[in-house]
Amino acid sequence: MACILYELLGADDRRFSPHVWRSLMALHHKGLRPERRPLCFTQLDQVEFSGHKRVPLLVDGERTVSDSWDIACYLEDAYPDAPSLFGGTVGRAQARFVNNWADTELHPALMRQIVLDIHDHLVTADQEYFRTSREKRLGGPLEEVQAEARAHALEPLRKHLEPLRATLAAQPFLCGEAPAYADYIVFGAFQWARCISAFAVVADDDPICGWRRNMLGLFDGLGAEAVGYPL
Amino acid sequence: MACILYELLGADDRRFSPHVWRSLMALHHKGLRPERRPLCFTQLDQVEFSGHKRVPLLVDGERTVSDSWDIACYLEDAYPDAPSLFGGTVGRAQARFVNNWADTELHPALMRQIVLDIHDHLVTADQEYFRTSREKRLGGPLEEVQAEARAHALEPLRKHLEPLRATLAAQPFLCGEAPAYADYIVFGAFQWARCISAFAVVADDDPICGWRRNMLGLFDGLGAEAVGYPL
Repeated sequence: MACILYELLGADDRRFSPHVWRSLMALHHKGLRPERRPLCFTQLDQVEFSGHKRVPLLVDGERTVSDSWDIACYLEDAYPDAPSLFGGTVGRAQARFVNNWADTELHPALMRQIVLDIHDHLVTADQEYFRTSREKRLGGPLEEVQAEARAHALEPLRKHLEPLRATLAAQPFLCGEAPAYADYIVFGAFQWARCISAFAVVADDDPICGWRRNMLGLFDGLGAEAVGYPL
Repeated sequence: MACILYELLGADDRRFSPHVWRSLMALHHKGLRPERRPLCFTQLDQVEFSGHKRVPLLVDGERTVSDSWDIACYLEDAYPDAPSLFGGTVGRAQARFVNNWADTELHPALMRQIVLDIHDHLVTADQEYFRTSREKRLGGPLEEVQAEARAHALEPLRKHLEPLRATLAAQPFLCGEAPAYADYIVFGAFQWARCISAFAVVADDDPICGWRRNMLGLFDGLGAEAVGYPL
């Protein structure tokens, strides 16, 4: 049966969507190797058959699932004999907290650090849409938002990473001795940054950095081989 | 075998330590009903036999365990047939993230909102120690720290609760359909506030409020019956 993952595409084949990375890693965790179909922002009408103009979109045989959290839950339930993404019901419930932490704390702060870099690594056809929609959302020119964030909001961002840092100082992965879905959630954010920005979100000697390197090596270097900047 | 939990004590029998609440709820989750031994700050030399002047301290038969995280792990391993606090190894690993989120994000922000109220609800003998040590840590008079926090830091605190809020909007407890240790971690912070302060940390119509009420009712109203202010 066909297993297709629709992704977001930037210039130079950059696959930078943090939510797509969550789903891509989850598919590999389950032993699935989807056909990857990249689309740039201005091509997202090609997934409107799903009811949304959004990626990730998973088409797994007869099933169509959008939204990265729903994709993870679908995979866990549809492939119960493959390695678990959540490690049980309590694990799934707590992973939702990590999901919400990434969506409401990590992503908005990280977005401001890299938003101009995202723009600059989009295909030309996407740049006007991206600039207009993000400047409206962020309240200013992308140049100013990013410069202001790097000048004043980097230390607060690094401080807000403390729950992650303290956890990774005590255990190799967010999910313990081996990675699982909560790791993919957070990895998505860092992979988003790495694919389109040379900016150092965390310092080299941060325990988060060692974990990022381990995450990049999973599934035969799936993350590491993606077009992006070196860590 | 004796099962004894050393707690922190304020004026009017207030049991306000957030970390003790984590352990007390965890013990009840495991079906254990410890003998509770409250000590005020200036009596903590009574637990020095443990190697620390800190509570919670659990004495379970021959075993002495301090630190709320270590107590939770000890209980999970020592009572494997009682209901699980973590729901497996992935759940335990992720609970550590929630633990670190509470310790590094929630507690420091909440402390500033209620630090004068803590002071005012301590036994007289503790007040000088508390004021001196906390004013040094927080960088100013308790009156000013708390007033400043309520004037300027309440909205940021409520915003930082968004991962919790969004999770509780989607499921009844942080751990899913039923509470487990991650719920007790976060409940500890709110119980800390409720036991010594009438201040509304979250608005009445916040989904977090409904969860707090459910948490207060657990174990025959263990949390609700503690001396404190109404929600």
